[in-house]
Amino acid sequence: MAERIEADVAVVGAGIAGLVAARELVTAGKEVVVLEARDRVGGRVLNHTLSDGTVVELGGQWIGPTQLRMAKLTAELGLETFPTYNTGEHLLRLRDKPIRYRTRPSLGPLVLADIGQAQARFDRLARHVPLEVPWAADRARQLDAQTFETWIQRNARTGSGREMLRLFAEGVFAAEASDFSLLHALFYTHSGGGVDALAGTAGGAQQDRFVGGSQVVPLRLAEQLGDRVRLGAPVRRIEQRTSGATVHADGVDVAAGRVIVAVPPTLAGRIAYDPPLPARRDQLTQRVPAGSVIKSHAVYDRPFWRHAGLTGQATGDRGPAKVVFDNSPPDGTPGVLLAFLEGAAARQLNRVRPAERRAAVIGSLVEFFGPQAADPVEYAELDWSEEEWTRGCYGAHFPTGVWTQYGPVLRAPVGRLHWAGAETATVWSGYMDGAVQSGERAAAEVVTAAA
Amino acid sequence: MAERIEADVAVVGAGIAGLVAARELVTAGKEVVVLEARDRVGGRVLNHTLSDGTVVELGGQWIGPTQLRMAKLTAELGLETFPTYNTGEHLLRLRDKPIRYRTRPSLGPLVLADIGQAQARFDRLARHVPLEVPWAADRARQLDAQTFETWIQRNARTGSGREMLRLFAEGVFAAEASDFSLLHALFYTHSGGGVDALAGTAGGAQQDRFVGGSQVVPLRLAEQLGDRVRLGAPVRRIEQRTSGATVHADGVDVAAGRVIVAVPPTLAGRIAYDPPLPARRDQLTQRVPAGSVIKSHAVYDRPFWRHAGLTGQATGDRGPAKVVFDNSPPDGTPGVLLAFLEGAAARQLNRVRPAERRAAVIGSLVEFFGPQAADPVEYAELDWSEEEWTRGCYGAHFPTGVWTQYGPVLRAPVGRLHWAGAETATVWSGYMDGAVQSGERAAAEVVTAAA
Repeated sequence: MAERIEADVAVVGAGIAGLVAARELVTAGKEVVVLEARDRVGGRVLNHTLSDGTVVELGGQWIGPTQLRMAKLTAELGLETFPTYNTGEHLLRLRDKPIRYRTRPSLGPLVLADIGQAQARFDRLARHVPLEVPWAADRARQLDAQTFETWIQRNARTGSGREMLRLFAEGVFAAEASDFSLLHALFYTHSGGGVDALAGTAGGAQQDRFVGGSQVVPLRLAEQLGDRVRLGAPVRRIEQRTSGATVHADGVDVAAGRVIVAVPPTLAGRIAYDPPLPARRDQLTQRVPAGSVIKSHAVYDRPFWRHAGLTGQATGDRGPAKVVFDNSPPDGTPGVLLAFLEGAAARQLNRVRPAERRAAVIGSLVEFFGPQAADPVEYAELDWSEEEWTRGCYGAHFPTGVWTQYGPVLRAPVGRLHWAGAETATVWSGYMDGAVQSGERAAAEVVTAAA
Repeated sequence: MAERIEADVAVVGAGIAGLVAARELVTAGKEVVVLEARDRVGGRVLNHTLSDGTVVELGGQWIGPTQLRMAKLTAELGLETFPTYNTGEHLLRLRDKPIRYRTRPSLGPLVLADIGQAQARFDRLARHVPLEVPWAADRARQLDAQTFETWIQRNARTGSGREMLRLFAEGVFAAEASDFSLLHALFYTHSGGGVDALAGTAGGAQQDRFVGGSQVVPLRLAEQLGDRVRLGAPVRRIEQRTSGATVHADGVDVAAGRVIVAVPPTLAGRIAYDPPLPARRDQLTQRVPAGSVIKSHAVYDRPFWRHAGLTGQATGDRGPAKVVFDNSPPDGTPGVLLAFLEGAAARQLNRVRPAERRAAVIGSLVEFFGPQAADPVEYAELDWSEEEWTRGCYGAHFPTGVWTQYGPVLRAPVGRLHWAGAETATVWSGYMDGAVQSGERAAAEVVTAAA
């Protein structure tokens, strides 16, 4: 028989969103139980320890200057950050040999003008999408009836300009520009403060890193919550009655007044609900797939690229690894290159043997950084689409038609059920900062409802 | 404790696909158990008996001349069909008053030429999409990177031409033209034999009806399978081991050599699998949402429109009911008008009270057929998105990027698991005929694998 616990609130999922919600509720004097499917906390945030003890991140990892909720949480938890390595020149490779650059790559005046006007137009459009109600944007239906790829083809005139926009799509959404709607691209970009804020290192979303790896955030939160967090307890069914709700997980049932479901919308749709969810909410969960990303680390005795005057940041349209960062520890030893396989590249390389995938990633690194990249001393990767309790990263993208037809039910509570998770955020949607916002918002809903 | 049954093959879902698969396997000498979540068979095919005993259909109902597998099955089961009422003139209403027509509505030469060239171009493109491998079509990535709506805007020049194509999208896919990719529109249209075959009554997919209502097909199939069909047994988990598979349903576990999952892909994705499904298969199930349709019947003492020289078939862009058919029983008494709310209209009217929805549907009928339509003696409807074990009709549509990135895993068996259901068909995909094809194909896979 399953153990039975009573609580004021049951939280489903011990990612940052669920843990922050629980923390807020505890502060408000509520009895809380957090049910986590895995044997660890953190969700899409996960440390990995290399053989020499160096910690790297296999999931979300950066914090940027406008991510104020994460900054506040970091301070409150007594955690430290340090700057992502950013000294020297970046690499960009469009078809040809890599070129080095500091602020703007020398792609020729025509291409630079093309990129400049397309980005300006896109950022301007994005600023006009209201973050609380993207479906109420001017011409929302039209923006939502086309893919971001269609917009790129219409608004960038040069091949290189188009490639740069596609790289933005892959790097930021872990999906192809053809996978999601223009309205989604605009909402998400506005939510993070614009193209440069999303794509940037210094001054942008990739500016800083956590000492000890980003999973210190959920680990510290869970530590404070103590035995309120139950690991190894995947939630299978949630019953709502007039008197309360019961959350059935493997091995434990929680009777609670309210429930916060803090998992990605697709996974929320796989829980059985009694009574069944309203149609529109159910159909939403059918329509917001997770992106596709394999995050890889190649470890070298030293960060040889630094000595060559390179930041370690590289972007290229050939792939399969199209986006690379220096992910070495604060003291720079060992040297770690972090390579992303995203969208179609992740889907293709999901199917090959690990050795072949590793060779493909190392091949990309050699093309960017030369033969010194050919022999890493260690290699570590994670394909998030293989993770049963995530099933894709970084987060959900909204295909055409979804924001306008289903957006209003994304956060709307259903009786005693409340929805959290980075996908439900209005500021820094899809990021750790958005997860914090969503947890705080869901906790506030519960406190208000119970008052 | 759950009852435990042993069988050669477990089939999940007693829709036409699952029942046909089971029938084939029984013929091949296999022990089969069919597990059905509902307390009835038929899935998306469902009869409804009016108060006077007349049977109408709340789900899929028609059979067309090129649906050869359904024709064969109908004959083998000893069932009878009769022609959909099609005598007189149809109605078309674009913004203005309804116009009457027999073959082509008199929309003016410019609009007719526009529709003609757009349809010809669309049908020609569709014929070039290979049905077994749509992702291998010429320029497949380009066709899959845009919505059908984007194609309509580029290829129809008149407002009325665009509206006609959008009505085709809503009527055939129960979704907006902006909800799915051009490649999906082309595949699906080719799979049914072209625009006229999909949209037509005489000579098309709506040509004939079943005496006794279309659910006679699954009911007869289930009758022949006898107690092999277990109702009220929703499948929650499927385990695969080297020695066999175990299907866990409420109240019953089935140990079997092979499993055929014959439910729509989204619902298949909500079953727990041990070991978890391969990433690409799982991500497919996140990306193929069901359409949105509310099917309504307004019942009148007599089919007054017939006496006015009308077929009862009406199409209009104002809505909310945009597509109407005469769905009276063979003897024409009572008169029954069948009205579809599809796509956005279904999503909007899902949220209102039943009386308000009924008034909206009757309002559309009055606009088409005049004041005699105002007072039906009976009204019956079903919103398929509310059905826990369907969650949307007519079937799944493929948003942009899905066919090219995930198409190859749609039918690919996963160890002992095989996939059936109308969505997996190559001929008449999404139709009852496609369901039959999928059931036969999955059964053949199982027989071959076991040989």
